[in-house]
Amino acid sequence: MEIRACLFDVFGTVVDWRTSVSRELAAFAGEKGIGGIDWLEFAVEWRKLYQPSMDEVRSGRRPFTILDVLHHESLMKLIGRYAIQGLSEADIAHMNRAWHRLDPWPDVVAGLTQLKSKFVIAPCSNGNIALMVNLAKRAGLPWDCILGAETARAYKPMPEAYVNSCRQLGLAPSQVCMVAAHNNDLKAAKAQGLNTAFVARPTEHGPGQTSDLAPDPACVDLAPKDFVELAKKLGG
Amino acid sequence: MEIRACLFDVFGTVVDWRTSVSRELAAFAGEKGIGGIDWLEFAVEWRKLYQPSMDEVRSGRRPFTILDVLHHESLMKLIGRYAIQGLSEADIAHMNRAWHRLDPWPDVVAGLTQLKSKFVIAPCSNGNIALMVNLAKRAGLPWDCILGAETARAYKPMPEAYVNSCRQLGLAPSQVCMVAAHNNDLKAAKAQGLNTAFVARPTEHGPGQTSDLAPDPACVDLAPKDFVELAKKLGG
Repeated sequence: MEIRACLFDVFGTVVDWRTSVSRELAAFAGEKGIGGIDWLEFAVEWRKLYQPSMDEVRSGRRPFTILDVLHHESLMKLIGRYAIQGLSEADIAHMNRAWHRLDPWPDVVAGLTQLKSKFVIAPCSNGNIALMVNLAKRAGLPWDCILGAETARAYKPMPEAYVNSCRQLGLAPSQVCMVAAHNNDLKAAKAQGLNTAFVARPTEHGPGQTSDLAPDPACVDLAPKDFVELAKKLGG
Repeated sequence: MEIRACLFDVFGTVVDWRTSVSRELAAFAGEKGIGGIDWLEFAVEWRKLYQPSMDEVRSGRRPFTILDVLHHESLMKLIGRYAIQGLSEADIAHMNRAWHRLDPWPDVVAGLTQLKSKFVIAPCSNGNIALMVNLAKRAGLPWDCILGAETARAYKPMPEAYVNSCRQLGLAPSQVCMVAAHNNDLKAAKAQGLNTAFVARPTEHGPGQTSDLAPDPACVDLAPKDFVELAKKLGG
């Protein structure tokens, strides 16, 4: 069946969260006169709490809760651990919205713009709707709609995240291509019948990255070098 | 509080459903050699089944069901009533998707494009996600995301349709403006604390329209003549 839509992982695949979050936090710390913290390390520590926080929802121990709330809870833990003093609620909300101000990789806007002329394009991210909308508006990402955890009411890699996203587009999984820089995301999408494309982002985790440097042939259909080459391969 | 997002009713406010649905059906009937039916009347009859079909969901008698399914059920009733013979499942699916192929009023694309530069813009329609995405892609509507009944899991004018849409944008109702050509939609939005703008569409129901020719001052904050004037009034 012909591909009609492309769904995209966002954190790591579309945007460089590590550089962007640390830059946002460092700039805010500068304004506030907060010194002595390695904000790149802080961003990485924040991200380490990401999967455990979603596991509470995936396991059913907690009802579905949007990522902005999970991010906020993780941030509060880190503020305690790093013993950062004197932050107001508004300060903490601003820090939490660092995840709404992430820069795309250089090929993303051109690639998505080409893909949009032929396909429905949407994020299928664990980020919530407001986060995705604010991020897209700032970065100029031309999504046709916002799909993902909040609309599917399930966090990837739960099957419902992929299946509900296809259903909400009125498409069969075989008419959809999932695009990600993470093999585990594509493995889960492939298991639900979606087509898959792996785009390597070898500096997502910094210069010493060892994971997801190459596609896993067991679950990857296409492995273009970036979004522009993806558009070319799909004829977009 | 400052307005950050504009939500739009779609059927009637953004698109001319009556002319578009009847044109789509007449063209299809021509291809299929189906004669003797007034397709403008058929479109109006189809629309008459719209509110009763959603009332089943609003009342709780039926679990949330997307509009494509409700439209399909209503279409099957009309096919029976008009005694149309020999349609395949694919034919009926094509007819049902007439609602995905509606033309915008002439001011819409220019107005939305201006509004998008300053505000988050999204439909808050009873149409489902796939319907809204396909309609927007064909008509060039530059939505930032698709909100409405399917994401809110409630049909307007239920309060949840408005409240959940604001919450999904991470905004208070006072930061959102609901735009519609129907006073009852704006009355329900205003009751939840949203700002409201009435844009008259005096030919939505044809040349003899008697309803919604003027804004109800009890629930309307702004009454621009079209979307371009709305953008000007909101400073977009």
